[in-house]
Amino acid sequence: MTAAEKLDLKFSEGKHICVGLDTDPLKIPPHFRGEADAIYLFNKAIIEATIGEAAAYKLNFAFYECHGPEGMAAMKRTVDLIRSLDPTVAVIGDAKRGDIGNTSAMYAEAIFNIYGFDCSTLAPYMGKDSLDPFFAFSDRINFVLVLTSNPGSKDFEKLELGSGVPLYKEVARKLKAWYPAENLGMVFRATNKTDLENDIAGLAGNFILLPGVGAQGGSASDISSVFRSAGHKRFLINASRSVIFASSGEDFAVAAMNELRVLNTQTA
Amino acid sequence: MTAAEKLDLKFSEGKHICVGLDTDPLKIPPHFRGEADAIYLFNKAIIEATIGEAAAYKLNFAFYECHGPEGMAAMKRTVDLIRSLDPTVAVIGDAKRGDIGNTSAMYAEAIFNIYGFDCSTLAPYMGKDSLDPFFAFSDRINFVLVLTSNPGSKDFEKLELGSGVPLYKEVARKLKAWYPAENLGMVFRATNKTDLENDIAGLAGNFILLPGVGAQGGSASDISSVFRSAGHKRFLINASRSVIFASSGEDFAVAAMNELRVLNTQTA
Repeated sequence: MTAAEKLDLKFSEGKHICVGLDTDPLKIPPHFRGEADAIYLFNKAIIEATIGEAAAYKLNFAFYECHGPEGMAAMKRTVDLIRSLDPTVAVIGDAKRGDIGNTSAMYAEAIFNIYGFDCSTLAPYMGKDSLDPFFAFSDRINFVLVLTSNPGSKDFEKLELGSGVPLYKEVARKLKAWYPAENLGMVFRATNKTDLENDIAGLAGNFILLPGVGAQGGSASDISSVFRSAGHKRFLINASRSVIFASSGEDFAVAAMNELRVLNTQTA
Repeated sequence: MTAAEKLDLKFSEGKHICVGLDTDPLKIPPHFRGEADAIYLFNKAIIEATIGEAAAYKLNFAFYECHGPEGMAAMKRTVDLIRSLDPTVAVIGDAKRGDIGNTSAMYAEAIFNIYGFDCSTLAPYMGKDSLDPFFAFSDRINFVLVLTSNPGSKDFEKLELGSGVPLYKEVARKLKAWYPAENLGMVFRATNKTDLENDIAGLAGNFILLPGVGAQGGSASDISSVFRSAGHKRFLINASRSVIFASSGEDFAVAAMNELRVLNTQTA
């Protein structure tokens, strides 16, 4: 199955929550902390509890890279586990990459072939040829940063261009001109409902990944209602800390599943 | 020594060439290819031959990440080797990172503490709070993308803002307002001498990393003459493929040293 087929299948089942495995060893339940393999074991328990309810999983490279080569091995084992439990669930490698062409080709090889992700995230600053090697993988989806959920999104993303539109809208417009909808995703923040309402028409047909629900203040039900009103089904709301750290006790996996079910109800 | 002290020391010795260890297993001499540890062994030979002439080394994460966790281990051993041979040579982790604050903090931990780099490269799209966690390391330098050497630099970097300046100049202006010169580097392409002449005044005082010499068509002597005319000493010209793959035979390390000496003469 292509990444687009996997996501569309979950959307057809009414699932729109992406579980972000931002696994921080300082926040996982204390009984894991003596384990050499704590990150993988924590992920495994979360995945086993949530895989029937998740639309997708997202692993942010930073949370694995900061543990050296062993952290990268834990990331790979986590992707392999998800694939073995349910090959119809897409896994996003949230790496926000972008480099000159021959170098982006190496990153694409790493994300898609070595680590086995279905989807990537990319940073657009360097332009088309920095993105092309990722889009050369015709069965994957690349979510490119358009408007992000952090305060710094005002610094450059929202700058007004000479043409009168903000930079992030020009990024979205060019991405749509360059790449087919089956491969193009966009990252758009979930923290401001009005922004989303104003821009929803421009996002039509594309896969949209929405960070910022939960710890960053966005509301899953608000986001869902904007997409449903627009008849747009291809939205994926990321929830990381609010799901995986829903409880710091031994019931963490059940608590994560319960939190995911609440979010699924809010977005149904 | 801080990263700024290391670079300023090399600049005071007239050294301005950064050796880019973009080590591609398909391009290294055939006698390495049977070796399990080929990437590290190739790097070791290049470093031992060039360390007396290099201003700095740069490792692009993509070339190591695409070999899985073992590639990351080879990257770390390479950084450790440079440090052990000459602790006054700065090593740049070319990762072009940038994410929301708590995630950028994880990347900064990886680049500076786990892998031990003196300097990073960062992508500016997400704004100040995506960069701050890297600049919190007051003894390091972060080279932020300003104007890059690839064709796609025209797609967003060169877009004219409502204020009349291109985006990349606004990025440079804000970076200078946000961060001290001892920590702020900028990536500026070496492929267009006229661009550099027009912008050199705006780069005053900052560390400038210039990609695009050699395989991408830029001239080290042209670049050097622009900086010297401006009385600007803090420039670092990256050379990757043209140095490390100067010969595909068993004389590759000597050939790399000879090529580096030629570049040093051109920029003296």
